[in-house]
Amino acid sequence: MKQNKYDENEFFSAYKELPRSVKGLDGAGEWHLLKEMLPDLRNKDVLDLGCGFGWHCRYAREQSARSVVGVDISDNMLQQARALTQDHAISYLKTPIEDLNFQDRQFDVVLSSLAFHYLKSFEDICQHIYRLLTPGGCFVFSVEHPIFTSRQEQDWHYDSQGNRLHWAVDHYQDEGIRDTSFLADHVIKYHRTLATYINNVVSAGFAIKEIRESVPSKEMLENNPDARDELRRPMFLLISAAK
Amino acid sequence: MKQNKYDENEFFSAYKELPRSVKGLDGAGEWHLLKEMLPDLRNKDVLDLGCGFGWHCRYAREQSARSVVGVDISDNMLQQARALTQDHAISYLKTPIEDLNFQDRQFDVVLSSLAFHYLKSFEDICQHIYRLLTPGGCFVFSVEHPIFTSRQEQDWHYDSQGNRLHWAVDHYQDEGIRDTSFLADHVIKYHRTLATYINNVVSAGFAIKEIRESVPSKEMLENNPDARDELRRPMFLLISAAK
Repeated sequence: MKQNKYDENEFFSAYKELPRSVKGLDGAGEWHLLKEMLPDLRNKDVLDLGCGFGWHCRYAREQSARSVVGVDISDNMLQQARALTQDHAISYLKTPIEDLNFQDRQFDVVLSSLAFHYLKSFEDICQHIYRLLTPGGCFVFSVEHPIFTSRQEQDWHYDSQGNRLHWAVDHYQDEGIRDTSFLADHVIKYHRTLATYINNVVSAGFAIKEIRESVPSKEMLENNPDARDELRRPMFLLISAAK
Repeated sequence: MKQNKYDENEFFSAYKELPRSVKGLDGAGEWHLLKEMLPDLRNKDVLDLGCGFGWHCRYAREQSARSVVGVDISDNMLQQARALTQDHAISYLKTPIEDLNFQDRQFDVVLSSLAFHYLKSFEDICQHIYRLLTPGGCFVFSVEHPIFTSRQEQDWHYDSQGNRLHWAVDHYQDEGIRDTSFLADHVIKYHRTLATYINNVVSAGFAIKEIRESVPSKEMLENNPDARDELRRPMFLLISAAK
């Protein structure tokens, strides 16, 4: 499955308006967690899978990464990334994550933000990333949480007044396609269980270092009353692992 | 928190009637998974935390474990365990899991089935278990899944006809006491996030080997139509780790 909603006008127009598109990393509710999970990037060769507008690539260079490669499938995203980037040590590459073609042990750090739930196989990706990393290299990524992705609706259960009563989980063990609505209809995501995410990382050879389940930052909780609902169920799962 | 419902008559009478009490391990829906996660027990010294009726202790000896120690807080449970056990290599000990007092590196395998969600601190237990294990030793345990424990009600959301519409998740990030009804009222359990379970194991020094989220066995799915609901959300989380 290599659906590319980001090159469809309706979807991309909506995506461009998201806080994470307008404000960059500070507009991404889980960035405060992902940032803490990244290793020291100084003099590292970094690969970013699903780089989008290149926010993480530029961050890596601000942290003195030696080189950064950002990979994405979307022309729209890469065009924007290139327009925002003036840095000879960052290169952007258009390719599906499933078709990566790098040398073994080419990178010290592989990161990926909210891309893998669009991919059919996570197991293959993990094995591939393991080969791309130097010994001791780090793999840090975020995905939509299995609690979030289990139902096609991916939504709260509401009362008749529209109040959020609780988060609804169903079909948890039924891994595979979810035809969801996110900015547009028919956005194909893949639901995987938590066991699959963890076990695929471990089976590839990695040691799990830490996992996080997204919570809003203190600042978000203070500035946005709705942010408290993010404590009721985790939207994102973040995992760091070492080769 | 060292609540001991198993020594209260109402609770224990109901517990004795559960399939897992009457039939032993084959009556426990998650045993077919836990069994696969255990290492080879031959000639191993095994510790079982929250041993109940001693089913796992006796299983370990059937697998030629050298010695087995079963620990439980409940006189009722230990009395039954002793009545069912004729084996000089199995010893039962009455002590809260929080107060274990064994020598460092005394055990090759520590297992625990559905006990840790009754304990206030999981972090302390992990660190203690790490010390008790020989290098290369295995730690395998099951707990109620964070998806299952998040709400005090720990129940499905039903329609007016009593049909199970979906599983309800709420208060996920609010770790701590859940005053639940399980066989009796006011059974105190502790909800912890998945991140806490995994990170506490890793922080203690363990390498995560595998996690499972409970599914019914093929046999259960064939013999019991209700078992299919267990695919809709995981009731138990199982983790194996190595020192």
